Amino acid sequence: MTELKPLRVGMVGYAFMGAAHSQAWRSAPRFFDLPLRPELTAIAGRNPSGVRAAADKMGWASAETDWRALIERDDIDLIDICTPGNTHAEIAIAALEAGKHVLCEKPLANSVAEAERMAKAADAAAARGVYSMCGFSYRRTPALALARRMVQEGRLGRIRHVRAQYLQDWLSDADAPLTWRLDKAKSGSGSLGDIGAHSIDTAQWITGQSITGVSALLQTFVTERPVAGDLVGLGGHGATGADTVRGPVTVDDAAIFTARFAGDGDGTASNNGTGTGPIGVFEATRFALGRKNAMRIELNGTLGSLAFDFEDMNALSFYDAADGPDAGFRKILVTEPEHPYTGNWWPTGHGLGYEHLFTHQAVDLIHAIAGNRPPAPSFADALQVQKVLAAVEASAGANSHWHNV
Amino acid sequence: MTELKPLRVGMVGYAFMGAAHSQAWRSAPRFFDLPLRPELTAIAGRNPSGVRAAADKMGWASAETDWRALIERDDIDLIDICTPGNTHAEIAIAALEAGKHVLCEKPLANSVAEAERMAKAADAAAARGVYSMCGFSYRRTPALALARRMVQEGRLGRIRHVRAQYLQDWLSDADAPLTWRLDKAKSGSGSLGDIGAHSIDTAQWITGQSITGVSALLQTFVTERPVAGDLVGLGGHGATGADTVRGPVTVDDAAIFTARFAGDGDGTASNNGTGTGPIGVFEATRFALGRKNAMRIELNGTLGSLAFDFEDMNALSFYDAADGPDAGFRKILVTEPEHPYTGNWWPTGHGLGYEHLFTHQAVDLIHAIAGNRPPAPSFADALQVQKVLAAVEASAGANSHWHNV
Amino acid sequence: MTELKPLRVGMVGYAFMGAAHSQAWRSAPRFFDLPLRPELTAIAGRNPSGVRAAADKMGWASAETDWRALIERDDIDLIDICTPGNTHAEIAIAALEAGKHVLCEKPLANSVAEAERMAKAADAAAARGVYSMCGFSYRRTPALALARRMVQEGRLGRIRHVRAQYLQDWLSDADAPLTWRLDKAKSGSGSLGDIGAHSIDTAQWITGQSITGVSALLQTFVTERPVAGDLVGLGGHGATGADTVRGPVTVDDAAIFTARFAGDGDGTASNNGTGTGPIGVFEATRFALGRKNAMRIELNGTLGSLAFDFEDMNALSFYDAADGPDAGFRKILVTEPEHPYTGNWWPTGHGLGYEHLFTHQAVDLIHAIAGNRPPAPSFADALQVQKVLAAVEASAGANSHWHNV
Amino acid sequence: MTELKPLRVGMVGYAFMGAAHSQAWRSAPRFFDLPLRPELTAIAGRNPSGVRAAADKMGWASAETDWRALIERDDIDLIDICTPGNTHAEIAIAALEAGKHVLCEKPLANSVAEAERMAKAADAAAARGVYSMCGFSYRRTPALALARRMVQEGRLGRIRHVRAQYLQDWLSDADAPLTWRLDKAKSGSGSLGDIGAHSIDTAQWITGQSITGVSALLQTFVTERPVAGDLVGLGGHGATGADTVRGPVTVDDAAIFTARFAGDGDGTASNNGTGTGPIGVFEATRFALGRKNAMRIELNGTLGSLAFDFEDMNALSFYDAADGPDAGFRKILVTEPEHPYTGNWWPTGHGLGYEHLFTHQAVDLIHAIAGNRPPAPSFADALQVQKVLAAVEASAGANSHWHNV
Repeated sequence: MTELKPLRVGMVGYAFMGAAHSQAWRSAPRFFDLPLRPELTAIAGRNPSGVRAAADKMGWASAETDWRALIERDDIDLIDICTPGNTHAEIAIAALEAGKHVLCEKPLANSVAEAERMAKAADAAAARGVYSMCGFSYRRTPALALARRMVQEGRLGRIRHVRAQYLQDWLSDADAPLTWRLDKAKSGSGSLGDIGAHSIDTAQWITGQSITGVSALLQTFVTERPVAGDLVGLGGHGATGADTVRGPVTVDDAAIFTARFAGDGDGTASNNGTGTGPIGVFEATRFALGRKNAMRIELNGTLGSLAFDFEDMNALSFYDAADGPDAGFRKILVTEPEHPYTGNWWPTGHGLGYEHLFTHQAVDLIHAIAGNRPPAPSFADALQVQKVLAAVEASAGANSHWHNV
Repeated sequence: MTELKPLRVGMVGYAFMGAAHSQAWRSAPRFFDLPLRPELTAIAGRNPSGVRAAADKMGWASAETDWRALIERDDIDLIDICTPGNTHAEIAIAALEAGKHVLCEKPLANSVAEAERMAKAADAAAARGVYSMCGFSYRRTPALALARRMVQEGRLGRIRHVRAQYLQDWLSDADAPLTWRLDKAKSGSGSLGDIGAHSIDTAQWITGQSITGVSALLQTFVTERPVAGDLVGLGGHGATGADTVRGPVTVDDAAIFTARFAGDGDGTASNNGTGTGPIGVFEATRFALGRKNAMRIELNGTLGSLAFDFEDMNALSFYDAADGPDAGFRKILVTEPEHPYTGNWWPTGHGLGYEHLFTHQAVDLIHAIAGNRPPAPSFADALQVQKVLAAVEASAGANSHWHNV
Repeated sequence: MTELKPLRVGMVGYAFMGAAHSQAWRSAPRFFDLPLRPELTAIAGRNPSGVRAAADKMGWASAETDWRALIERDDIDLIDICTPGNTHAEIAIAALEAGKHVLCEKPLANSVAEAERMAKAADAAAARGVYSMCGFSYRRTPALALARRMVQEGRLGRIRHVRAQYLQDWLSDADAPLTWRLDKAKSGSGSLGDIGAHSIDTAQWITGQSITGVSALLQTFVTERPVAGDLVGLGGHGATGADTVRGPVTVDDAAIFTARFAGDGDGTASNNGTGTGPIGVFEATRFALGRKNAMRIELNGTLGSLAFDFEDMNALSFYDAADGPDAGFRKILVTEPEHPYTGNWWPTGHGLGYEHLFTHQAVDLIHAIAGNRPPAPSFADALQVQKVLAAVEASAGANSHWHNV
Repeated sequence: MTELKPLRVGMVGYAFMGAAHSQAWRSAPRFFDLPLRPELTAIAGRNPSGVRAAADKMGWASAETDWRALIERDDIDLIDICTPGNTHAEIAIAALEAGKHVLCEKPLANSVAEAERMAKAADAAAARGVYSMCGFSYRRTPALALARRMVQEGRLGRIRHVRAQYLQDWLSDADAPLTWRLDKAKSGSGSLGDIGAHSIDTAQWITGQSITGVSALLQTFVTERPVAGDLVGLGGHGATGADTVRGPVTVDDAAIFTARFAGDGDGTASNNGTGTGPIGVFEATRFALGRKNAMRIELNGTLGSLAFDFEDMNALSFYDAADGPDAGFRKILVTEPEHPYTGNWWPTGHGLGYEHLFTHQAVDLIHAIAGNRPPAPSFADALQVQKVLAAVEASAGANSHWHNV
């Protein structure tokens, strides 16, 4: 392993996502045979003592208080962006222009315009062998990667229905504090971009079909919340602070929408009639009491169905109509050596956890960079998700009228 | 029991619903103490030998080949309508005008206009002590009746989310035959009115709040199907016939829509902003492979949540936020003596089946009639559902634009 | 139907089992095509007003206060015994000797000696065309009947493991009243014979292999209970009475045992080594808080596995190793037309309940009698179960030493 | 963190358990605030190139080819034993005598005699501030730690029933290769000591009550298997090798037993009567097709019940009888900040995996050593488990006769 060329990482941000990414960079080479050796070279954050402590805790060799310093350093090959969405475009474009590979958390940006600039920068960089990827980490869930493989193998036939829910409840309490995730200027949107974006990306990726239009409704259940001291705490899931001062929630609490996917190449976006692509129902909320991280998706095709719930992340349910009268949803424990990613971990039945998604993401990215081929999801893929998010907001703002993506 | 006054029933139609209703009339007095003694007096059907055989099989004392004969008979107190939707209005109105109580299968009618005439006739009859009820049988599921009771007791707090799915798969095979349920002239609509109507009624009944507007999308996946010989077979779920001749499917295969419910009395129907009523997501389909009769509903309130799936009909899942860190969805087996209807059946844990819904429906109807009070759901309640169905179709036909109910 | 020869039934006892059997006799001809027409001719019970009221409520044409009167009547073809176990032998033998067919509730008797006399009487009667059956009703659960069929078809290969649990909790409360089910003189044993007997019969029936030996432990958790007024209430599941007077519980509250099944014909009963029959673990209890009627069985074979829980009685889980890395327990909804019994009821996905077991039992019995062939389970089958029960008690009384059946 | 005193670890063995322990030592300080800083100082293994490669892969600073070298080194504080059971006693005793703390994989030894010597050595070492712990890692599952806490808080009342299963299927294929785990000389026993030991320890730990006696049955389903080249592969779960040569399986494939636990201090071991301690049913097997790592336990007490299945390891089911008619098994997602261990990881609902058990184990051990207090489970605790294993084997060898522990 000592002979491997290093991939020197500089990470921006060190909260929830920073912790997950750090564990990924540390663990990837311990369980996977990699063509490059990741190094935790430096992290950046504005608070000098905070970033120093985080570097020690998370195992980074050095710390910077300005992300620009990371980009200027010669000993860094890749910039890993774990900050709120309003900062993504500036950091990513600067990094790509400086010849650094980029891994950027999702959603890619807070607007389509930003995302387009980022995708353009990514294209230009790719021509120079500098690569970029957006962190739609749920693609690295073994069960969802298996789902995609089964769809690609034709085991579901033609997909007719997509139903995707991402249900959480951490804002159900009206006294939960106002964090940066509830501030549109920083986060771009609420449940829609934070968790709905995962559902959109996952649905498009598994089906291999793009959403062509939507009809949407957004809702903010709690319009004011207590202002907490530190708005950039762990994942923005801060503890309840004093409730003397309240500030406005400027994002959606829940987003629900219907959708059509492109079918046999015609890309029709009519919301009526008999299009050949699947129809979809999406729901994202942080107010579904009792649902903690229920990122769910179900697909019904002409030959079979698949169902998944992240709260039981090591399982995938599969219905094969060919089983005839003895058919039933099979609960596949996705821990076999033949399943995506899992053969590198533990014996069958010994499940993985949330953080493994990030390790798999690091593994896939390292292989792509070393192989001189573009990793996925690309910024262009993420731009497409951004366009769906924008269409959802546009439709919601126009009495749910159908909006093409 | 012999001293009880009889309630003499005349039933129209003897297919799937007829079989279920017959078992209900036979079983109700065996398990419940009733104020009237139901008698299976007569059934009507157009086919003389068919109706005669059905009468014998199902235990009816006589048979008629014209429903009008039932209405003319003096020895019949109640007309039980189990025919396709296009016949409901004529039969029900004639019966009510003749002074017969009416139980009418759902959906109430094939159009709002018909439903309005029926509701008007029902009101007029009620003034004369003649009662009517629409057969939204799922209200009689013990678990759903318990759900309603818990919502009414305030155990969920204010409801924020409703998600209702009714998923079947019996049309997933493109060679399944064309039955009357796929003929708009007879059935009015497809999955929307057949099963979506149950979801709409259940959601409104449990929450106690009406849907005020919708944004919808309808889809027909298979536009032509083999013409089967007998289009009025068991539940319209006929066997695959010869596929030489195909006819058009004129109804929706799937219906998906978002909705808003009336909140604190303002009845707002805007699809944007911060209304106080719940927001809802509905999906009805006969193409969800592997889902056989997944009539599901989940509610999230400020204090708790409820979830139900008819495929496990004896259970209700309840999340009580007051349980704190040890909260979790409780799977309540709804078979306790304290639960709705169940105390009249078997010891705890010994579940009920589909047909029991109809027995409970008969029980409730008999009590209302004997008590000289209007049974629920009334035709007016069913008219409101019909208006939601119409709004769904209108929105789907207008690029999903928001449509008030 | 009017031309069918009747099967005139006389039932003894009218509590929990009597209600279930009555519904079965009433419903069987409504849903199944039968070669004989069952008639609810008479019931017998010691309490004159009670038995008269029960006859009216349950639809029996007449009532007797002594079961002997039923046997003496010429207009009765079959005696249906729904009384506590201490009365079975006398009634059944008298009935058989009088030329009446017999359906006898389980367990067959309170001792092996009684059961042997009954089996002998049954054999003698069968030679005269008079048939008998023991009411191990769980065999008529569609999912368990499907399980047996799958085992017989070889889909599990050779069975290695049987794990059977029958968990209830209605005695968990130490103040639940003393009923006849807790009186050894009437019931023979406690959880062992009441519910464990079902597990034993089901396990042997599905595997097609007999238990050859056991090692057991019995436990009585609550040794005294309040004496209730009426000890023969609904299923012996009486309400809590005044707790001033307490009487002794003389039966087991829980029974647990390991077992070996006969394998390839050698019938070995050694508890050590490498026998070719399955090994089994059994548990029956009325003290498993939260388990209401969890009659469960799981089988693991060389090719696949099956799992069942009566609390979700319309489903059977099947694991087919041939599915390879995508194998998983399939939850088969046992409601298809191809499944045992279910095609006579409702469309797919519309489940059945507890009482349907008894209807299926009546159907199978009627077919056997009309076809002049012995119904199953025979009294000999039930005697074998009785011998297992006796071996369990013997082993438990001898420091769990292995006891051959 | 740089100022913390180190805890320098030397690990023996580097297969399945070695990989898990390595990830634990690496990850513990990244997520938990620890009083000592673990260092991956050295590992030992007999194969020079193998151990060198493992050291690089797993992040160990140096490698030795003899475990004795680890013990002789001054720069090692703790010996972590991850080898087969036949080597535990020698290594552990030598390490303790040399003043090294010891973490030893389970089962502690291959015989009670060995375990007694180890426990004695552990006691002697503890008097000198040198500590030891046995690796019953399932105690560190957050859901099981929560289960123990709830029992200790009295939320279940007095426990009556324990049912524990550990079901795997990796030997179901009769051509799976012969590995060291099937060689009694190396592993001591089969399913009994490998997985049954976890069930025994977990059951005793959660209930706080010791098993006082057992009645058991052992079974070897497949008596000969193909000899594989390398018998010490990943967890002994080696791939199928050539089947030309077969060798004998010398351990049990499955172990089933009933048990009694000590109750209110009387420690009665009678297998009959009305002891106050719980009764238990245990089953361990590697032949339950479809069950991959189903380490399950259910407890029923006088006030409530708990149920767990490691295949869904982030959940614990709890039944609280105080919930009355609305009681039901609550599926608690054990990912809240208030739950054991989980607050140091991810937001609620983002589950953990198998390897986290080992990280938690390392955390607990480091705290104990730094706090100068004995960690649990001690060698004495593990000796008690060993005695239960011995009693199981003794009973199985004596026709299941009850055997006191």
